[in-house]
Amino acid sequence: MTDTIQADSAAPEATSKLDPALTDAILTAVKEGFSDQVAFTQDLIRMPSVRGREHTAQDFVARALRDRGLAVDRWAIDVNEISHHPGFSPVAVDYQNALNVVGTHRPRNETGRSLILNGHIDVVPEGPHEMWTNPPYEPVVEGDWLYGRGSGDMKAGIAANVFALDALRRLGYQPAATVYVQSVTEEECTGNGALACLVRGYRADAAIIPEPEDEKLVRANVGVIWFKVKVRGIPVHVREAGSGANAIEAAFRLMQALRRLEADWNTRKGAYRYFEDLDHPINLNFGRIEGGDWASSVPAWCTFDCRIALFPGVNPRDAAAEIEACLKDAAASDAFLANNPPEIDYNGFFAEGYVLEEGSAAEKTLNRAHARSFGRSLESFVTPSYLDGRVFVLYGDCPCLVYGPFSDNIHGFDERVSLASIERVTGTIALFIAEWCGLEPITP
Amino acid sequence: MTDTIQADSAAPEATSKLDPALTDAILTAVKEGFSDQVAFTQDLIRMPSVRGREHTAQDFVARALRDRGLAVDRWAIDVNEISHHPGFSPVAVDYQNALNVVGTHRPRNETGRSLILNGHIDVVPEGPHEMWTNPPYEPVVEGDWLYGRGSGDMKAGIAANVFALDALRRLGYQPAATVYVQSVTEEECTGNGALACLVRGYRADAAIIPEPEDEKLVRANVGVIWFKVKVRGIPVHVREAGSGANAIEAAFRLMQALRRLEADWNTRKGAYRYFEDLDHPINLNFGRIEGGDWASSVPAWCTFDCRIALFPGVNPRDAAAEIEACLKDAAASDAFLANNPPEIDYNGFFAEGYVLEEGSAAEKTLNRAHARSFGRSLESFVTPSYLDGRVFVLYGDCPCLVYGPFSDNIHGFDERVSLASIERVTGTIALFIAEWCGLEPITP
Repeated sequence: MTDTIQADSAAPEATSKLDPALTDAILTAVKEGFSDQVAFTQDLIRMPSVRGREHTAQDFVARALRDRGLAVDRWAIDVNEISHHPGFSPVAVDYQNALNVVGTHRPRNETGRSLILNGHIDVVPEGPHEMWTNPPYEPVVEGDWLYGRGSGDMKAGIAANVFALDALRRLGYQPAATVYVQSVTEEECTGNGALACLVRGYRADAAIIPEPEDEKLVRANVGVIWFKVKVRGIPVHVREAGSGANAIEAAFRLMQALRRLEADWNTRKGAYRYFEDLDHPINLNFGRIEGGDWASSVPAWCTFDCRIALFPGVNPRDAAAEIEACLKDAAASDAFLANNPPEIDYNGFFAEGYVLEEGSAAEKTLNRAHARSFGRSLESFVTPSYLDGRVFVLYGDCPCLVYGPFSDNIHGFDERVSLASIERVTGTIALFIAEWCGLEPITP
Repeated sequence: MTDTIQADSAAPEATSKLDPALTDAILTAVKEGFSDQVAFTQDLIRMPSVRGREHTAQDFVARALRDRGLAVDRWAIDVNEISHHPGFSPVAVDYQNALNVVGTHRPRNETGRSLILNGHIDVVPEGPHEMWTNPPYEPVVEGDWLYGRGSGDMKAGIAANVFALDALRRLGYQPAATVYVQSVTEEECTGNGALACLVRGYRADAAIIPEPEDEKLVRANVGVIWFKVKVRGIPVHVREAGSGANAIEAAFRLMQALRRLEADWNTRKGAYRYFEDLDHPINLNFGRIEGGDWASSVPAWCTFDCRIALFPGVNPRDAAAEIEACLKDAAASDAFLANNPPEIDYNGFFAEGYVLEEGSAAEKTLNRAHARSFGRSLESFVTPSYLDGRVFVLYGDCPCLVYGPFSDNIHGFDERVSLASIERVTGTIALFIAEWCGLEPITP
């Protein structure tokens, strides 16, 4: 079990050189480590790594990587280092605790292809706790389901990356190529975490991101823009309501105009490969609203946060210009808003979508690994949500395989992920590493 | 100047027994004290007595009343003492700093009619400071205008009550009847401050409230209900937006239904004396909204705060039943809300309106005092906003004269009150006291 396994670079079309015995041994090793892997995932879920509080979970990951002998690089994102980049998203929050963690494995003999195993540590806010069956950061297991905010999206994936390497190690092997294990932040709001890794120089021949993609490969996904719309105006005592104007209701009139823009964008889907057959590829969301101070004062202000998708290839700047024109037109024909034009503030994602071109060696390798782990062939699909995959594909010249376990209620209440699915995905990743990077004995 | 002035109770229709010389002397005394009165009003404005922080301004008023020799009663409203009362409004905040202050003047010989001089110390939130020309709690004077949150509504009125008595005192007189000087809280949200005074036993033959009523007398005003509507539902990842439901947009659909209810109520105005000729006596306001946590999560919750007016004579319970039926109907025909019916919470005003019956002795006395101070006759009008006057009229069997200075931007930015108007209103109050209560020499 300590022979060097040659990476499959010379013959990407051929059947993998992994022999059935090694394949079985790897999958068995994954299974043997799985209860530890679940416990590790549960520890990660217990850390509420919402934006601004990612650091404790990142410290935990850094320790785990260091314990495994990886060289650990942990740093807070520095906006000055990435703001020049076309993939940068504007940001209003403090990045002091917005840590990235990368653990590097360096082989003795670099014979295989390099790999990035990426995952994001940040989770979206859990919302009102009383709408959860169990507390959101209590990683309860019921049957095949592991519950908790971030369980599927994507602490299970971070754990899968780590435990895929562990399984190989238990067999006495390590990758025969450089492997970067990345735990990034800001995937749920800007993508600046993955971008900061790229700008810092982390590059590889392929990347895997085990996002909760229901055991399928993401073929293409949308870009995303976040923007905040601010309405301001002169309020009055409610006894003179007719002479004032209600900023909350003015905000809703702008929302209605944006819904019309969304409908218009969806009519263009025929022009975008992979998106023609989706019912509604462009989703607009009004995710947050706040306005007014007092029930008996006509509100002077209202702000609302929006998220809208873009077809791959659409430049966020062009999309932003359309959004601004839409708001301007709506305001111009509105008695109140014409005198109080809304402001727009880009406060997060300003990101293009991407397409994973078919036929890459990396994808073929994943197809084989998946087929062995799951006993069925891999499907690909198109997802109308943001993914850090765009950083690798658009700016890193790197095929990025976004592929991960079956999950439920992502961003909702009672988020959960399938344990059986995690185990098989971990098997896929371990087999992928073995074939893509090749293996060398840990002890020479 | 130290003769006892007999109160006018025996001959309410007759010309006042105040002779022209005394009238002039009182108005001159008001003028002489006016620069001190403005300074006192400015001190009051400097104290940001928004809800929950009324106590420092109340302590200031208590000291001012004590310095003038009044017996001061200062207490925090106790919900248990008033919650049984039909005029009670439900409340969710802590009343620890919700102080009432009453200073009592007791004459040596009670020969006149007793009087309550009432004002409210609480102010509504000032909103975004950058929309103010000067800081909201900086009491800037420009020309005839005194600026600041609470300047008109109604710290000028509280000062007018105090300085009307001061003017008489400078002439060597004090009222020949019991006078309660009340500085109450909670006028802007529940009316429980004035109610707590009533329940504590403060009663009189008439009451004056110098609210900023543009030098007119309030003939009738509306009741008010506050309610909070809560929408809750199951959110999803925005990639599945179609299968989820947006609580913010659902809230907006409920607002539209409530606007239809408002229109319906306004069609009933013909049945309410004094309201037939108003354009839009029933105003509904959406004063505050909050919903969602994250731009990329479909929001699971949204709450909004409403204020709606009631015609006098409409029981708040009946109005609340109509509001609930309106929301229930709107929800029943809505795909999302039918499964997630909204909740309604009464969190403030639950108050009937009132009519000041014409022809009272108190009103006639005010007519005369106003005519002398302003040189023109007093007009009355109907106002579509809440007033504590309802506590006196509905539950205290006491004619309540809501009458006060000219102002601008009440509840808005750059709230301001006319100094010339304050001075004349103060003169009216001083003349009213002299005639209604009678005067006795301070030194026997």
